[in-house]
Amino acid sequence: MSLKAIPFNDVTINDRFWSPRQATNSEKTIPHELEQCRTTGRISNFAKAAGIESGNFEGIFFNDSDVHKLVEAASYTLQTHPNPKWESELDEVIDTIAKSQQPDGYLNSYFTLVEPEKRWQNLGMMHELYCAGHLFEAGVAHYQATGQQKLLDVACRFADLIDKTFGHEKRAGLPGHQGIELALVKLARVTGEARYMSLADYFVTTRGQRPSVFEKELENPDLPGGLGAYKHHYTRDDKYEGTYSQDHLPMHEQTECVGHAVRAMYLYAGAADIAAETGNNGIATALDALWQNVEKRLYVTGGVGPSGHNEGFTQDYELPNFSAYAETCASVGLIFWAHRMFLLKGDSRYVDVLETALYNGALSGVSLEGTDFFYQNPLASRGGRHRHAWFGCACCPPNIARLIGSLGQYIYAQSEADLWVNLYVGGTADATVADVPVKLTQETDYPWSGDVKITIEPEKPVKFNLNLRIPDWCGKFDVTINGETQRATVGTNGYLSIDRTWNADDSIQLNLDMPVERVYAHPYVRENLGRIALQRGPLVYCFEDADNPDGAFETLSLAKSGYMEAVFDSTLLGGITLIRGTGTVYDPTDWDNNLYLSEPNLKQTDVTAIPYYAWCNREAGQMAVWVF
Amino acid sequence: MSLKAIPFNDVTINDRFWSPRQATNSEKTIPHELEQCRTTGRISNFAKAAGIESGNFEGIFFNDSDVHKLVEAASYTLQTHPNPKWESELDEVIDTIAKSQQPDGYLNSYFTLVEPEKRWQNLGMMHELYCAGHLFEAGVAHYQATGQQKLLDVACRFADLIDKTFGHEKRAGLPGHQGIELALVKLARVTGEARYMSLADYFVTTRGQRPSVFEKELENPDLPGGLGAYKHHYTRDDKYEGTYSQDHLPMHEQTECVGHAVRAMYLYAGAADIAAETGNNGIATALDALWQNVEKRLYVTGGVGPSGHNEGFTQDYELPNFSAYAETCASVGLIFWAHRMFLLKGDSRYVDVLETALYNGALSGVSLEGTDFFYQNPLASRGGRHRHAWFGCACCPPNIARLIGSLGQYIYAQSEADLWVNLYVGGTADATVADVPVKLTQETDYPWSGDVKITIEPEKPVKFNLNLRIPDWCGKFDVTINGETQRATVGTNGYLSIDRTWNADDSIQLNLDMPVERVYAHPYVRENLGRIALQRGPLVYCFEDADNPDGAFETLSLAKSGYMEAVFDSTLLGGITLIRGTGTVYDPTDWDNNLYLSEPNLKQTDVTAIPYYAWCNREAGQMAVWVF
Repeated sequence: MSLKAIPFNDVTINDRFWSPRQATNSEKTIPHELEQCRTTGRISNFAKAAGIESGNFEGIFFNDSDVHKLVEAASYTLQTHPNPKWESELDEVIDTIAKSQQPDGYLNSYFTLVEPEKRWQNLGMMHELYCAGHLFEAGVAHYQATGQQKLLDVACRFADLIDKTFGHEKRAGLPGHQGIELALVKLARVTGEARYMSLADYFVTTRGQRPSVFEKELENPDLPGGLGAYKHHYTRDDKYEGTYSQDHLPMHEQTECVGHAVRAMYLYAGAADIAAETGNNGIATALDALWQNVEKRLYVTGGVGPSGHNEGFTQDYELPNFSAYAETCASVGLIFWAHRMFLLKGDSRYVDVLETALYNGALSGVSLEGTDFFYQNPLASRGGRHRHAWFGCACCPPNIARLIGSLGQYIYAQSEADLWVNLYVGGTADATVADVPVKLTQETDYPWSGDVKITIEPEKPVKFNLNLRIPDWCGKFDVTINGETQRATVGTNGYLSIDRTWNADDSIQLNLDMPVERVYAHPYVRENLGRIALQRGPLVYCFEDADNPDGAFETLSLAKSGYMEAVFDSTLLGGITLIRGTGTVYDPTDWDNNLYLSEPNLKQTDVTAIPYYAWCNREAGQMAVWVF
Repeated sequence: MSLKAIPFNDVTINDRFWSPRQATNSEKTIPHELEQCRTTGRISNFAKAAGIESGNFEGIFFNDSDVHKLVEAASYTLQTHPNPKWESELDEVIDTIAKSQQPDGYLNSYFTLVEPEKRWQNLGMMHELYCAGHLFEAGVAHYQATGQQKLLDVACRFADLIDKTFGHEKRAGLPGHQGIELALVKLARVTGEARYMSLADYFVTTRGQRPSVFEKELENPDLPGGLGAYKHHYTRDDKYEGTYSQDHLPMHEQTECVGHAVRAMYLYAGAADIAAETGNNGIATALDALWQNVEKRLYVTGGVGPSGHNEGFTQDYELPNFSAYAETCASVGLIFWAHRMFLLKGDSRYVDVLETALYNGALSGVSLEGTDFFYQNPLASRGGRHRHAWFGCACCPPNIARLIGSLGQYIYAQSEADLWVNLYVGGTADATVADVPVKLTQETDYPWSGDVKITIEPEKPVKFNLNLRIPDWCGKFDVTINGETQRATVGTNGYLSIDRTWNADDSIQLNLDMPVERVYAHPYVRENLGRIALQRGPLVYCFEDADNPDGAFETLSLAKSGYMEAVFDSTLLGGITLIRGTGTVYDPTDWDNNLYLSEPNLKQTDVTAIPYYAWCNREAGQMAVWVF
């Protein structure tokens, strides 16, 4: 089975959850990030490389990628929320990037300005191919959004150079930080150029050979850029290991999510594209194993990569709360991978994870105002964690911007004679099934309500399967078609499949029961033993000082019998459904100077939980997802 | 108030808990440790320094101290359980130590053999004064036990040299590892030599000055012995800090337990002696603050010093279970300190901690067989922790041996016209109150039972206060005198005080209610949030694989309502009172491949807990003190 997403430019979003977020993305986030890229020299770097401005390269060697990602984000947004504030600036930025391209197609402002003679000599550390990948994604997005070829052509010229340089019977080479694989697939699909797909396949399938290309690079006494994160690639006794970059084993032998989480997610996403395009069963089987593994290494929020040490994976069930790294980019990358796994396999388990990451661990990456960002997304805080307007290494802010900008592409999919509804988001999609144009319209107050009305408007009656995803969090639902209750069972793939001839103005009412749930972690997740998290629909909740007495929720016990209700509050945090209830906490005054007591008093207390994504948007304070 | 302990040689022990342990100490532990000291070159080092044997110094530079501590342990044991197997060997060891003394009184086999010209040049790292202190304690114990002066004289000659070398208007010097302070107090008391007390006072009161004597030593380019644990004394930017050795502040300004825990305990114990002897209020006040602080840094087992990094203290309430360092020596040192705090203040809060450490965190340091030892005493294990027959740094084995050998001294105390019963241990004590000899006899099956019969036998009727400690774990008790129930209230000092004229064969029956208690840790002890430990009387309990299905107790929930009973099993682990009950555990098979579930099943299970001190005496397995 292989499915295709209905692309962002055939989807509109019109609801009270995502529409305001896409508007904020356009009105606040994108201009804010453009300004940051300008004031930190990121855009000037291209101008300097183009010879338009004078001066030295500024910042970190892979800063180009932030601008490329922002161009990608802005391109999606041109479709849904065009904004005169930054449209002309976007054109200028694209123009400057284009001018910085070297005569042979090479484009990287760091190498052009600082070490022009040393291209491609330190692929392991210096992110040239990673930056190229982000340029390709920007070129594709801008073309899809506007029909303009300028940046796409720039991307193709650079891709042609890379294709001439690396590959079978050419030079051996791999990206130290992945991303170019999925970017080349996008480029191949939009241009029809098979060479790009072959190059993506080369990068996926030649990874993990010995000796590694990265290992050999380090023999160069005159290595450009320095050693960077070198130590992460090596064992303590200084042998090349490669797990940090998922270069420890050939892709088809990989079964465990290891190393830097963003690198891993981008690689697996690209590998899923390649498995879909080439039918490579070895890769598909490896991805099944990797997916099973990531399901043992996943925060309840959809965060991955618990450790700050390697910005990545550690071991099964090791999911500390306070020190959770759970980088915003890693959750975004997980969404990319999950989406491609769904397209490869047509199973809702991938979309369940996608939805969790989207509404929780990724969305928490940006403030409600749209101008502050989390790099790390801990599941508990003693009050010292805050979003920031920007970072020296600013990968996360444009990543969340491009995710929100391109949200439309994750909602629907289609296979031969089936339409698939994955996410419940108000708006429309235009598809063509059996040569008949079909418009789908969703009306819903999701994620605050599980009630969804879907109207199907084919240009003429047409028979197809409509697959509605029944989320894993949903234990009970009912469905009517044109007002008639259906006896519906969910397939093993997690979808409610409705096979019929659809007529204009057919409508489906799907009601997903959305109670407040107490969620328990597998007992091997030691840090959460005895604890519960609250979830309602796709939203994981948390407790903050702002709503609850000073940090008391660290000892909060929400007894199974306790009262708990969901209440929509339109005035709070942009409008959210709160969870209100009663719990018990230890009364610290009780303990006096005792360290141990046999009969400590518990104090009844009213508690309020808010959606995790909305935390840290008020005065700084403590936060916890998992309580007792 | 200042009290005196009734010394070990006026006390006998005769019960079924401690008598077998003292017998094992004599029959197994002491000969085993003598053999280890022999085979590891520790005893030969003295013979080589004496010129009796040839060869180089072997082992670690402070290995002398292990032999001194073992001589001390064996000396106590000569009183209670003399043993022909090692008595003559003990005499030979003492003889060899004596022969290694240099003409000027100096005694340290490392410096004599390796760096004879470099005495006293690296007090911070090289433990010369620490080893001297252990020699003094050995000399005093051997004299008290046997009346023989040989080793005491050796000790005094060395103490005289040290006194000539260091002090006010002499050379400035301090022990890098404390212990000599309390040893000099013992030496002063047994010899009546005021100079030794003054020197102890000097070592206590001149600590923490700036520049530190240790700091100045490091200017020596030719430092003997090397840098050792140097880094612990310094901040990251290489400034001398001194917390590792409690040299960060003058003693009277110290309020926080810091640094290496054994050093800290020995210092505070010596300081409490000095406060009692000299009436130094500044020191006494500092000790109050330090005690309040240690009560925030104490494992429920009486372990202190959670961190392996500095073998010591970290911060209030930081008490991790798996990684608990809680060195056996630190619990022994805590007992020394607590005992002296009690003698200084006459309050049971100190004896409560003493008893907890004695029955749990210290006693766990030795196997039931008496020949294997814990250095660290974790409160949870995944199965990889075991006792060992010996260590390269072997401070703990002789420390637990001397504690068990000298147990008698901790049971009773006396002040002007009061007798104090601190620990409930079967046996007798001989005291003299108002010039009347009084024999006290305890009959009890403590700690398995809280019933204690105390018989008072004065040579003639005599009036005095008999103070019986009511332990902090005891919520209910009754007491009869000569069969008549008394209306008794506990004083603010934690003692039940019975003031009367005592006649021959008066007897008291004290029944301390000893139910199974669920103990909760202060909510700031984050690792124990939501967890409980089981305690009965002074014994903290734990769960081991051997009695319970494979590690399931890690998720064990002992609901408040659950059944729980104490049962004596004479066949198990030398005879122990088990706690049997029911609890619930997660059924891991339930979780399938899910990481999060909203309705995990709990499985009813029978569970058995054993006293913590007895853990790891069967097949290796998992262990936990704190469960849910």
